[in-house]
Amino acid sequence: MKKTDHEVKSLIREMDKTIQRYIAKRKPITLYGPVQYFFDGGGKRLRAVLLLLSSQLISRNYKKSIHAAAAVEILHNFSLVHDDIMDQDDLRRGRATIHKKWNTNIAILSGDVLAAIAFKALNQSPEKHIQKLVEIFSEGFIGLCEGQALDKEFESRSDVREADYLKMISQKTALLFSLSAQMGAILGGARKSQEKALKEFGYYLGMAFQIQDDLLDIISDEKILGKNIGSDLAAGKKTYISILASEKDQGRGMVNIFQSLTDEDIRKKTLDEFRRYLISSGVQARTQKMIDKYFQSALNRLQGFKNTKTKQTLIQLAHHMWKREN
Amino acid sequence: MKKTDHEVKSLIREMDKTIQRYIAKRKPITLYGPVQYFFDGGGKRLRAVLLLLSSQLISRNYKKSIHAAAAVEILHNFSLVHDDIMDQDDLRRGRATIHKKWNTNIAILSGDVLAAIAFKALNQSPEKHIQKLVEIFSEGFIGLCEGQALDKEFESRSDVREADYLKMISQKTALLFSLSAQMGAILGGARKSQEKALKEFGYYLGMAFQIQDDLLDIISDEKILGKNIGSDLAAGKKTYISILASEKDQGRGMVNIFQSLTDEDIRKKTLDEFRRYLISSGVQARTQKMIDKYFQSALNRLQGFKNTKTKQTLIQLAHHMWKREN
Repeated sequence: MKKTDHEVKSLIREMDKTIQRYIAKRKPITLYGPVQYFFDGGGKRLRAVLLLLSSQLISRNYKKSIHAAAAVEILHNFSLVHDDIMDQDDLRRGRATIHKKWNTNIAILSGDVLAAIAFKALNQSPEKHIQKLVEIFSEGFIGLCEGQALDKEFESRSDVREADYLKMISQKTALLFSLSAQMGAILGGARKSQEKALKEFGYYLGMAFQIQDDLLDIISDEKILGKNIGSDLAAGKKTYISILASEKDQGRGMVNIFQSLTDEDIRKKTLDEFRRYLISSGVQARTQKMIDKYFQSALNRLQGFKNTKTKQTLIQLAHHMWKREN
Repeated sequence: MKKTDHEVKSLIREMDKTIQRYIAKRKPITLYGPVQYFFDGGGKRLRAVLLLLSSQLISRNYKKSIHAAAAVEILHNFSLVHDDIMDQDDLRRGRATIHKKWNTNIAILSGDVLAAIAFKALNQSPEKHIQKLVEIFSEGFIGLCEGQALDKEFESRSDVREADYLKMISQKTALLFSLSAQMGAILGGARKSQEKALKEFGYYLGMAFQIQDDLLDIISDEKILGKNIGSDLAAGKKTYISILASEKDQGRGMVNIFQSLTDEDIRKKTLDEFRRYLISSGVQARTQKMIDKYFQSALNRLQGFKNTKTKQTLIQLAHHMWKREN
């Protein structure tokens, strides 16, 4: 376990160095200062690790995948910067968001340049794969925007069903995980069937990850989470929790009460009540069951691969995500 | 002349159809509705035409360049949508801007998806050119963001000199023109020297175009311009006009007075006075001289090319831009 952690950390370090090649010491500082600040805030780098391990699962030399790994991480950070503006979130990774620390204009532009840099990074991959990678990556980027548009649209709709929600998160979240694994597979030289299995592995991980996010938004600890507890729900977002709760009258009432509270102290008290409701109503258990189902589906997709060290690391990555607290 | 106009219009029509393939009938409508609205507003499609004609100058078949032409036009529109938010401009092409008609979130997301679609479109170009095109295009996109960051930074600086300004517009405006001509050249199969000449042709056109924009912002007619007269200056932007005027004390005073007026009626009266000052001080003449210099430099870059119909069309395009009123 320790050895695996060490290996993954070393991959992250190398990928972070690659990112720095695209942003360090660039001008103007009014643009790259905020960009650097955002990356300095850390982050799990899950998508990049997934890409590198997927590549390594197919062929040992993951070096040719390092730019694509940087690219997915940069695109992910682009989406965080812009989502934070749209969601008016003040905290990210325990620190002020760019639009809060600077202003909205700087946050828009920081996100924009990250999107541009992501393609520049991706384009450093081996030429024979470029057209396919750019196809997958630009489609993923489009899907990300469509998912975010749905997410925002859902905020003002009361008719959002579980299926709508799952479609939304498949674009907003799972797509970037699935394309990370798929691009890693391609760069590793995977056969079609392997590419498909890894793509699906990423997809299921991503679905599990987002539903987990929805649950953690309510049941986690603010200090561990690095952002305000209940912020998604308070913003009127449709989450897996709010959709399950809305199926029952009492649940919908609970969500509405929680959302309508603007006083921070009262909301914290209501949060406790809401948490008790999630347990007593079975909503939390049903949500956890869904999370478990997706993680299990992800792990199943690895069955066809030979039992190598990298496969063990991928399995541990999934388990590590499964029990995450932030 | 009429025949040339007809030819250019036909290129634009075909390119617009290509754009529609990427945005028409896509969902969600909360995202693609505003995107469609923005394209319906028209626009000169100058960058796309420049790309297609540059391609045609080298080899007759421009069809292989149509996706790249759509890509530069889409990227240009991305930057307009986001710039309008940052500059708080309410009018574009005589209609409400996206953030005004909808809201800032929708405008951010509309811009984002356009950036993504631009790469998807570019990637439909012939495979042998993809890596080079993505390199040029992503660098151009980065430069665009850097130029916009400088433009915003300059608003709160009083020490911006002519050289700083020229560097800023070379990124914010000229780069997209130069990469359009360069990509057209590459797709047409140009030799290195031809690619360089066309790249420079585009660059000089772009420089001329932006300085002209600065002048038209003050001396044009609101109805013809399709946006508020003096809006750049009123927003505190550094323009070629404001920089020349600031060299002289009276000029700086005039700019300051004009910028500080919040009452719309008073500003319109001051505008007349400011226009008279621009003429009497020679600022307008010096600005026009700079515009002429850049257009002439652009035309000089075409000298080495054989005198074909396409070359004549490119020359006419430059002349058409030279005498534009909006």
